[in-house]
Amino acid sequence: MKLISYHHNGQDGYGAVVGDRVVDLHAIFGDRAPDLKAFIAANLVSQAAAKVAAATATLPLAEVRLLPVIPNPDKIFCIGLNYAEHIRETGKEVTERPVIFLRVADSQLAHGEDIVRPRASERLDYEGEIAIVIGKSGRHIAEADAWSHIAGYSCYNDGSVRDWQLHTSQWTPGKNFWRTGSFGPWMVTADEIAADQKMTLVTRLNGQEMQRATTDMMVHSIPRQIAYISTFVPLAPGDVIVTGTPGGVGNKRTPQVFMKPGDVCEIEVDAIGVLRNGICDE
Amino acid sequence: MKLISYHHNGQDGYGAVVGDRVVDLHAIFGDRAPDLKAFIAANLVSQAAAKVAAATATLPLAEVRLLPVIPNPDKIFCIGLNYAEHIRETGKEVTERPVIFLRVADSQLAHGEDIVRPRASERLDYEGEIAIVIGKSGRHIAEADAWSHIAGYSCYNDGSVRDWQLHTSQWTPGKNFWRTGSFGPWMVTADEIAADQKMTLVTRLNGQEMQRATTDMMVHSIPRQIAYISTFVPLAPGDVIVTGTPGGVGNKRTPQVFMKPGDVCEIEVDAIGVLRNGICDE
Repeated sequence: MKLISYHHNGQDGYGAVVGDRVVDLHAIFGDRAPDLKAFIAANLVSQAAAKVAAATATLPLAEVRLLPVIPNPDKIFCIGLNYAEHIRETGKEVTERPVIFLRVADSQLAHGEDIVRPRASERLDYEGEIAIVIGKSGRHIAEADAWSHIAGYSCYNDGSVRDWQLHTSQWTPGKNFWRTGSFGPWMVTADEIAADQKMTLVTRLNGQEMQRATTDMMVHSIPRQIAYISTFVPLAPGDVIVTGTPGGVGNKRTPQVFMKPGDVCEIEVDAIGVLRNGICDE
Repeated sequence: MKLISYHHNGQDGYGAVVGDRVVDLHAIFGDRAPDLKAFIAANLVSQAAAKVAAATATLPLAEVRLLPVIPNPDKIFCIGLNYAEHIRETGKEVTERPVIFLRVADSQLAHGEDIVRPRASERLDYEGEIAIVIGKSGRHIAEADAWSHIAGYSCYNDGSVRDWQLHTSQWTPGKNFWRTGSFGPWMVTADEIAADQKMTLVTRLNGQEMQRATTDMMVHSIPRQIAYISTFVPLAPGDVIVTGTPGGVGNKRTPQVFMKPGDVCEIEVDAIGVLRNGICDE
């Protein structure tokens, strides 16, 4: 299934995309799951497929306003420097452990919305990534068990304001500008993507390919990320891990490329779909 | 007022501490504010004083189990390297902008509970700090307006697992172990602490003073922190800023001092009170 969070008729909802229409899952599951995070936490994903197949999807996808796939994750972990080409272009070295920084939910936006170039800087860069959504709670998760903790996969644009990222040693400010982290268009449930399936990730800016990698090129694999993070803090349903960006970021090109109003940035993952955003000024 | 979040009789609540008793504010304000974060967001603090004065506080403070002052903040910003002596002992330099990292809510615990020394490391260190709780939303908050965005003040122990903090350039793992960030015992509302009032912060481990500073020694003042953070992301009621630790951390002593089961760590701020935690093994 492709699961989305959306706003329609003045209300937030969530549902499954079937062709160009949406099955309203909130209407089916009601108070048992008020939002997609609660739906995942209540372990309803496996029950939903039959209900979606039986339902009549009357709501056109084009009529809903998408929200970030999980609008309200408790935690958003981002993995830095996880592809060799990106490590090389930044002049850094491969680390024995994953580099981890955090995003706050307020920094997110949805497919189809504009990424906001802030008043504070013109150095707004893209970072195409694959996001995983945690489906099952856990602490000290073994790498061998990690795949079973994933509810699904999505595209993510970890929009980065480069000068603010480098104000100090900690990247927090440049990685948390309002409406810079795009998350969508939907989550493909894990039953449709095999454990360790090789996925291809491509970033395009105004139609031109800027980044390309396959998931087997990650320095720290997805199971390794889950095992490492869950050593320090419990993972919970709806938590998001943004798994790192390939080489080719705008900041490290010659000449440098930054996103500006009117641009269109696309993150495509073959097994998932295309996340597309325009850019606007704050 | 001293405001707390607590658990009692199987339910989470919040209230005002009057002597050794608690006025249940959830009972007074009901659905208008299900928790302390919502109470602050609904701008009920100013209305509460008269109701607290008129109420009969029947619940003994000793009978409730405290929760972190705000158990569910949307964002927890921590300021690194914000006192000269701590900067010196770490061998770093003063930065033009505040060093900012994030905590997740799941890393928090309350006054009276045990900070957890994880299985993964014995290098568990204290960091005594003053926390501010945001009362009023804002973006691009000017330093001159910053004090008006503060709902109150609390003590914070930014418990740090030093080896995991330094696994890579980003401190996230060592600053986010489960039950290492202690937040309490209560929030003193901002009407009781003057803007820019000089507060004294002391950390004691097993009764021995380990850290001492006054808030006028901060490199980046509280208004500066609020102005800087709100440049990149909106601040919201219930958001927490943990304002930095003085010199004297255990990791930089000779010999090094780490917290171990049986220890008691206290963070005292003269204008607020004492935050006390034991230590236990995971």
